[in-house]
Amino acid sequence: MRVPVAVLAVLSMWSSAAVAQVKPEDAIQYRKAQYSVILWNWMPMNGMVRGRIPFDAKEFAKRAERVAAVAPQLLEGFPQGSNAGAETEAKAEIWANFADFTAKMKAFEQASAALATTAKGGDETAIKAQFAKVGESCKACHDAYKAE
Amino acid sequence: MRVPVAVLAVLSMWSSAAVAQVKPEDAIQYRKAQYSVILWNWMPMNGMVRGRIPFDAKEFAKRAERVAAVAPQLLEGFPQGSNAGAETEAKAEIWANFADFTAKMKAFEQASAALATTAKGGDETAIKAQFAKVGESCKACHDAYKAE
Repeated sequence: MRVPVAVLAVLSMWSSAAVAQVKPEDAIQYRKAQYSVILWNWMPMNGMVRGRIPFDAKEFAKRAERVAAVAPQLLEGFPQGSNAGAETEAKAEIWANFADFTAKMKAFEQASAALATTAKGGDETAIKAQFAKVGESCKACHDAYKAE
Repeated sequence: MRVPVAVLAVLSMWSSAAVAQVKPEDAIQYRKAQYSVILWNWMPMNGMVRGRIPFDAKEFAKRAERVAAVAPQLLEGFPQGSNAGAETEAKAEIWANFADFTAKMKAFEQASAALATTAKGGDETAIKAQFAKVGESCKACHDAYKAE
């Protein structure tokens, strides 16, 4: 068969991820992408929590589920040495305190997973309370490890 | 409580996604991000299929599952009017032929879902065959709707 374009597109890159020797610039692009996906899904939840758009339990649950699904995929975007190589707001402190960084990532994972579960329940008050907790888990990591 | 940084970060953007009046540049950033996530997960699968790294059924299944999860999230990154506003390789033909574009996206969804299912089975021959089909579904859409 003809080699699909999508396959050709990655041939020049396979050696980075595929052999677990990730190029810093690829890891930086990946983690930025995942944060963009989180933000995209966070925005409508935030609009509902702030009362700027009508609360839609089904839509909120879908967005919460998507954020919870991304959370466990973030850490692989921070391999050793990926504090440089492309524009990044990730501080070098991440790799100097990787256990703490990992713990903060796990806290975000747990908070976002709890939000997805709470959102399925449809209790608006409980959902808003857990949404705030997820935001706090974001802030805890950003305060320590994200450059302004 | 203090307003989390993550919430502040989206306040200025809420009006776009939250009221379903997405800014073209936000949609473009979102869809590029999702394609970056797909590529990140595609690379190691490609390395295994091409025999450049040892086949690892568990790792392959994880990557296939992640691509299958992103696939149904792509279409919302192509709202009307998002053919401009930021650098994009998306051709205007997408919105002129949106039914066909949607059908090609659905074909990718189905092929990637089938790959995730096949990958769980661990049959390397079947996995490689379905991986090629997913690549063909990428190519079908890129050939028609992605600028070189």
